Amino acid sequence: MNDNIKNIAVIGLGLIGSSILHALKLNFENKFFTYAYDIEIKNRDIVKKLSVASKVCNKLADAVIHADLIFMSVPVGCMGDVAKEISPFLKKGVIITDTGSTKVSVINDVKPFFTNDVFFIPSHPLAGTEYSGPESGFANLFRNRYWIIIGNKNDINAKIIKNILKNFGSFVEFMDAEYHDKILAITSHLPHLIAFTIVGTASDLEMDLKNDVIRFSATGFRDFTRLASSDPIMWRDVFINNTDSVLEMLQRFNEDLTALQKLIRQKDSLKLHEFFSRTKKIRSQIIEAGQHEPENYKKK
Amino acid sequence: MNDNIKNIAVIGLGLIGSSILHALKLNFENKFFTYAYDIEIKNRDIVKKLSVASKVCNKLADAVIHADLIFMSVPVGCMGDVAKEISPFLKKGVIITDTGSTKVSVINDVKPFFTNDVFFIPSHPLAGTEYSGPESGFANLFRNRYWIIIGNKNDINAKIIKNILKNFGSFVEFMDAEYHDKILAITSHLPHLIAFTIVGTASDLEMDLKNDVIRFSATGFRDFTRLASSDPIMWRDVFINNTDSVLEMLQRFNEDLTALQKLIRQKDSLKLHEFFSRTKKIRSQIIEAGQHEPENYKKK
Repeated sequence: MNDNIKNIAVIGLGLIGSSILHALKLNFENKFFTYAYDIEIKNRDIVKKLSVASKVCNKLADAVIHADLIFMSVPVGCMGDVAKEISPFLKKGVIITDTGSTKVSVINDVKPFFTNDVFFIPSHPLAGTEYSGPESGFANLFRNRYWIIIGNKNDINAKIIKNILKNFGSFVEFMDAEYHDKILAITSHLPHLIAFTIVGTASDLEMDLKNDVIRFSATGFRDFTRLASSDPIMWRDVFINNTDSVLEMLQRFNEDLTALQKLIRQKDSLKLHEFFSRTKKIRSQIIEAGQHEPENYKKK
Repeated sequence: MNDNIKNIAVIGLGLIGSSILHALKLNFENKFFTYAYDIEIKNRDIVKKLSVASKVCNKLADAVIHADLIFMSVPVGCMGDVAKEISPFLKKGVIITDTGSTKVSVINDVKPFFTNDVFFIPSHPLAGTEYSGPESGFANLFRNRYWIIIGNKNDINAKIIKNILKNFGSFVEFMDAEYHDKILAITSHLPHLIAFTIVGTASDLEMDLKNDVIRFSATGFRDFTRLASSDPIMWRDVFINNTDSVLEMLQRFNEDLTALQKLIRQKDSLKLHEFFSRTKKIRSQIIEAGQHEPENYKKK
């Protein structure tokens, strides 16, 4: 299926870009020639040492000029700049995807720079760890994780990408950009925002109390700090670029928190118990959902 | 050291009570005769089947009448009732501890029922899972976890409890009740409250969106649902009994969240990046703190 794809470029060698290179190498051996580029010399050097790319380029143009498929795995806020910079060097018919956590903004940012003979298929792997940088990448980061493609599942170029992603072990799903941004606002962006906030609140405590909070951080707080330790640049860009959906979900969250705060102040044990019981149910549904492989994966 | 302790009673056979019985059996073999009681027949039957107690009693009085040491591991809201009910049957000189997540309220609730020849030493294991019930208990739940004792570390009865807990593998720390409640408000109670809230917010979404949120729950949301699935009764009681500390921390959290919300609305990338970088540091400190065993444990 990917017979026309010989050369693949990966632009941006953070956790995601590095993992894509790892996954291409592991799952396709020498089928592709891979070009890698990052704006930071340090990251290029690490990827050279990892020996996961066929060629690490010192110039962005050199990385994309031969590419039949390009992964843009730079922070969401840089997608427009990268698109602009690579546009003069793109091969006719090249397929380009990105891995940004917001989709509406990325599409708006890059669209002006891609001509009609270039096929841009936005995508987003729902995968990550609290570690960043190329040294944290690994081949199985995407295994058993959803990878969402924005577009039509019958599109020939989308199918080419899908086929590669399925070889990474990902569950590929199609949806539109607006819906993606809404889903991600509640499943990922808002939880991270809240985690950042509570860790910030703790770090503002008086010194003694703060030290003991760190020392006695029970499960709850420890989990929050894990979320709050992921890449600051990536998250800055997410919140600047998915502002509307995040603020909408945040408003709903605030209303609910205010209601709960009132129940606590009133010591309303009946309603508190009701509420805590309801949220427990959602957990069961998520565990259940996690136990079944999605349809499209079974059919593979 | 524990030579005077022959009979131990565990009242309340949830995750914690069951784990205490497991830990006593594993770490002390037949040194103690253990009595177990729970108000629910179902829980008593499960503990019988687990064969972790020397005797499972059908009456609370029977469980405590011979006891030299009692663990009260019932929900915080029931401590007062249990204290009242056992008080006529207590042996002179019995040591009593509890495992409640709030300490000021428990002390206030039980104090009226314990006479001067009964030694009440409140405590709290910083350990737990998202599972509840006696069937979820296991001997190593407390291993490498803090177990906080409220009181004086030179007190002879506190030392007896400490010695048993150290055999469970716990790191034992002493502090006063008010400070404990403040620490726990930020490290555990507030994170759980927030987790309950966000899962509640998600469960109020329109059906399609809600189903996809469950399906695509990325790391962030999945972690929150884990927290939000712990025992509803336990958490109801925590929030009703540590109201002041929780509301104080919640207010600080709300102020911080409002500030962050404003930065997002203003798309203030500089300040957002600063904030996300700061919270990342706290994580490093927590990981570092977790790598070192506390002093008192090394000296064991």
